[in-house]
Amino acid sequence: MSKPTGYILKPNPADPRLTERVSGLDQSGGKIETAVTVERALTIFLNSQEIVTAMTINDYPEYLAIGYLLNQHMLLPDDVVTGVDYDEELSLVVVRTKRKTNYEKKLKKKVQTSGCAQGTVFGDLMEALEDVKLPDTQLRTSWLYKLAHDINTTPSLYLEAGAIHGCVLAQEDKPLVYMEDVGRHNAVDKIAGWMFKEKVSPADKIFYTTGRLTSEMVIKTVRMGIPILISRSGFTAWGVELARKANLTLIGRARGKRFVALAGEHRIVFDQDLAFVEEESAKHRRKAAMHDE
Amino acid sequence: MSKPTGYILKPNPADPRLTERVSGLDQSGGKIETAVTVERALTIFLNSQEIVTAMTINDYPEYLAIGYLLNQHMLLPDDVVTGVDYDEELSLVVVRTKRKTNYEKKLKKKVQTSGCAQGTVFGDLMEALEDVKLPDTQLRTSWLYKLAHDINTTPSLYLEAGAIHGCVLAQEDKPLVYMEDVGRHNAVDKIAGWMFKEKVSPADKIFYTTGRLTSEMVIKTVRMGIPILISRSGFTAWGVELARKANLTLIGRARGKRFVALAGEHRIVFDQDLAFVEEESAKHRRKAAMHDE
Repeated sequence: MSKPTGYILKPNPADPRLTERVSGLDQSGGKIETAVTVERALTIFLNSQEIVTAMTINDYPEYLAIGYLLNQHMLLPDDVVTGVDYDEELSLVVVRTKRKTNYEKKLKKKVQTSGCAQGTVFGDLMEALEDVKLPDTQLRTSWLYKLAHDINTTPSLYLEAGAIHGCVLAQEDKPLVYMEDVGRHNAVDKIAGWMFKEKVSPADKIFYTTGRLTSEMVIKTVRMGIPILISRSGFTAWGVELARKANLTLIGRARGKRFVALAGEHRIVFDQDLAFVEEESAKHRRKAAMHDE
Repeated sequence: MSKPTGYILKPNPADPRLTERVSGLDQSGGKIETAVTVERALTIFLNSQEIVTAMTINDYPEYLAIGYLLNQHMLLPDDVVTGVDYDEELSLVVVRTKRKTNYEKKLKKKVQTSGCAQGTVFGDLMEALEDVKLPDTQLRTSWLYKLAHDINTTPSLYLEAGAIHGCVLAQEDKPLVYMEDVGRHNAVDKIAGWMFKEKVSPADKIFYTTGRLTSEMVIKTVRMGIPILISRSGFTAWGVELARKANLTLIGRARGKRFVALAGEHRIVFDQDLAFVEEESAKHRRKAAMHDE
């Protein structure tokens, strides 16, 4: 398989703002120095209203703010964004819209969701699912194996310092945008923000994540209009149920040769000869076990 | 090392309410059946006020409700709980207190935090840290290795169906309470609820988690008054910083022989001869890699 190429955006693990060196002791009591991932507080405003303070690695505050508001249904797909102002000193970002917004009421009713993809979603997120019709985009298994290989060999903060989640937006066998963050919901929101800003169609896209396929992850993918969701990790029952209701293709436990599809199986074209797929390297598996549970 | 014994509460992976069988396709296009973890919505009330809807495996709704309210600082350590009513049909649990409560204002200002331990914490949680004085409880490395071994060999939903997080409350080398849930914050909250209900002192306890050592995880542990936090997984920079400020012993990447301590190192007594510690089994490492990232 070829080297990963053609990313529009990908992690920059060499960025000194994203990791920090700290010292401590190892198991023998000896002094060591190690790299840890940063997390910073970023307060998101929609027009004059303070919405939420997120903890983030803060590499793309503008995309995070737009994506968060979109995924919370506070910013609508056809809203005109008149400005996004990031103030580094105050750690805040203001998204301004042509439409007047007021989410005073909405902020009172929050649903706390489960899992790594944890975040604060609002009650009517669920209702929004009902209007979404996901297109019958194909997923060739040859794309799936190529994507997993490319993503796993892309230099990332995950490989550098761990304690991070990654999400990738892909098209056919090509990864396009790879975002990482301390909270997976942030990585998802940054991709949603990028798609909104760049006016990218979700219909022919594939979403790949390092984390578990919980209800929240399914809801976010469907809300974004992306028909295929793939993860190295496992499923929850409600995640599977929602994916089936929404006609989302849900693939989990994807590593090496193996994967399991529990919803939307009709999109999958089994074109890959499995004899030519490598098992996942022991080194990558160790890395995964090390950082991500 | 001996078999795990002496748990007061531990996972019951055989409980049919906690997993569900679903069918799908594997990588060859063949039909398969597999177990997935359930998640259910549970709405938590404090007296007459609806506070939050959490997604949970719902094995201990009462402990979850009490612990959630405690960790959000809505229930105070010296509050008198006059009743905890769980309504299975309506999926709600009401915690009643002698003190009149009103969190209308507080519910408006929420801070969304990072990481697997994601949850909704309130702004003043941070302030609450300043009043906590953690005791100088010892941590012998021989306890640490014994605990990790016992926890890793305890039958759990994690080993059964994956897509779950686990937290364990321990004392010296003995695990006492092992809780699992689809969101790690739930597992933490259930332990906090159990400690409150059973009037258990945190001063001589150790907290073990499968997830990353983020700021939120550190804040929760300190708020609970537990002086030692251990994880198989990695650190974030802010997690380390907060742990140092709060004088919490923070140990991460604990697997097999290895671990790294980045805060509160003075509590550690290096009494274990490392020549007698087994490396983590390849099977457990595979399981960890499989389910948890």
